[in-house]
Amino acid sequence: MTNTGEQTGDGGIAGRNIKLVIAYDGTDFSGWQTQAEAGRERGSAAHRTVQGCVEAALATLHKHPVRLTGSGRTDAGVHAVGQTANFYTDIRRMDAERFVPALNSLLPQDLRVLSAEETHRGFHARFDAKARVYRYFIIVGRRALPHETRSALQLWRTPSLMRLNALARLLRGELDCSSFASPKDPSMSRHRYIFNTVFYMERDTLIFEISANAFLWKMVRTLVGTLLLYEEKGLSLDDFRALIAAKDRAKAGPAAPPQGLFLWKVEY
Amino acid sequence: MTNTGEQTGDGGIAGRNIKLVIAYDGTDFSGWQTQAEAGRERGSAAHRTVQGCVEAALATLHKHPVRLTGSGRTDAGVHAVGQTANFYTDIRRMDAERFVPALNSLLPQDLRVLSAEETHRGFHARFDAKARVYRYFIIVGRRALPHETRSALQLWRTPSLMRLNALARLLRGELDCSSFASPKDPSMSRHRYIFNTVFYMERDTLIFEISANAFLWKMVRTLVGTLLLYEEKGLSLDDFRALIAAKDRAKAGPAAPPQGLFLWKVEY
Repeated sequence: MTNTGEQTGDGGIAGRNIKLVIAYDGTDFSGWQTQAEAGRERGSAAHRTVQGCVEAALATLHKHPVRLTGSGRTDAGVHAVGQTANFYTDIRRMDAERFVPALNSLLPQDLRVLSAEETHRGFHARFDAKARVYRYFIIVGRRALPHETRSALQLWRTPSLMRLNALARLLRGELDCSSFASPKDPSMSRHRYIFNTVFYMERDTLIFEISANAFLWKMVRTLVGTLLLYEEKGLSLDDFRALIAAKDRAKAGPAAPPQGLFLWKVEY
Repeated sequence: MTNTGEQTGDGGIAGRNIKLVIAYDGTDFSGWQTQAEAGRERGSAAHRTVQGCVEAALATLHKHPVRLTGSGRTDAGVHAVGQTANFYTDIRRMDAERFVPALNSLLPQDLRVLSAEETHRGFHARFDAKARVYRYFIIVGRRALPHETRSALQLWRTPSLMRLNALARLLRGELDCSSFASPKDPSMSRHRYIFNTVFYMERDTLIFEISANAFLWKMVRTLVGTLLLYEEKGLSLDDFRALIAAKDRAKAGPAAPPQGLFLWKVEY
């Protein structure tokens, strides 16, 4: 066997580097991949992860294990419209775009590959990501219908868009995000660069969009829960500044539930 | 025991008549109630019906069986935003509106009671309905995302709204609907009065709305499948008139799949 590819970190033989854009309904997944289970039993029914399902499909196509690298993990119940990942393939006579139907024919309906393209050898879906964009969907002022409750939070009251945006603007820029991250987050630094934050309405749905270079564990959900709490309690901008400065997760609000959250896109 | 209510058709003791508006995500239901299983094993896991689940919750509240009458059946996989039903209750010291939280606390998340009100003794959810409104949702020109595929059909091509509406207009008025009904439909008459039909776009979603005094079995899905087929093949209005006049289901197109269909509201 001639090795025409390059060696990957986990010992596999690498050929062409393929970038995938992936969408999923996170409801029935235990997230992208859980920490504890990393590396074993991926794709099993009891512990169904997005990475595990795609790696199982890739293994079927390649007839050997293939490692998939995602832009980052999403938690159980969190959805994605534009998750991005890459893998190395030693399949030669196949256009990269053909991985879309080939993988989708092997994947469950709640997980779809939207696009596949060949990229340069060194591309890394996590390390090369310049920005992640998340959106959180909240149906306000009415009961969410059953077909909507898998992908939105319901809020009976109608919060003030102006006040929410005044609070959210304080998050922009380089920020120590300790107040909004799970204490379990293993990151070396708690500093992140937040490019933009905005709340806007589409009909009766309130949408929070946030983009940053990267996020800490449970950060978007904690931000949403805290911003809604501060708005509801009529707390001031100075109160929110003090919370940010406290760098203490215990002082922030509860994390909003996962079903409203979508990893919207990853920019490179 | 003093009987203060009135006798219902199926032998139960009737008190106040309560009208419910019910919404459900039909994906995991075997429809409102299937013919074969009528009257037995309702609400069981193997045969989960909307009527069965609500009747099970009503039985828990009342401590005896309670019969629920719906405006009509919906098939497996078909959703509802405004299904309407009624039941007689012998619970006295409880405002009708309180049935909403009481039932919802007993019902699964994919089935919600939206409203409950006391109505006159003779009200019958099926016989008194003046109009049923259905909507069918079709995502056009792009891949439906995983969180959307439970509640919409996907169509890669973008059909002509003008041609679809020209065809759909031919359905308005009193009509023998034999060409669009399942041969298994047990109705005495195949005549229905169609009040309105319209296709319209909301962003990249094509919506077909139809209202009629009543519908035959699989009629809306057969109409959607046939209208899309006639539009795609460029068939003429005269071809469609001939299909209607043929009164032959075999000459129509395939039924569109259930996931795009919603029972939108019932008018009394």
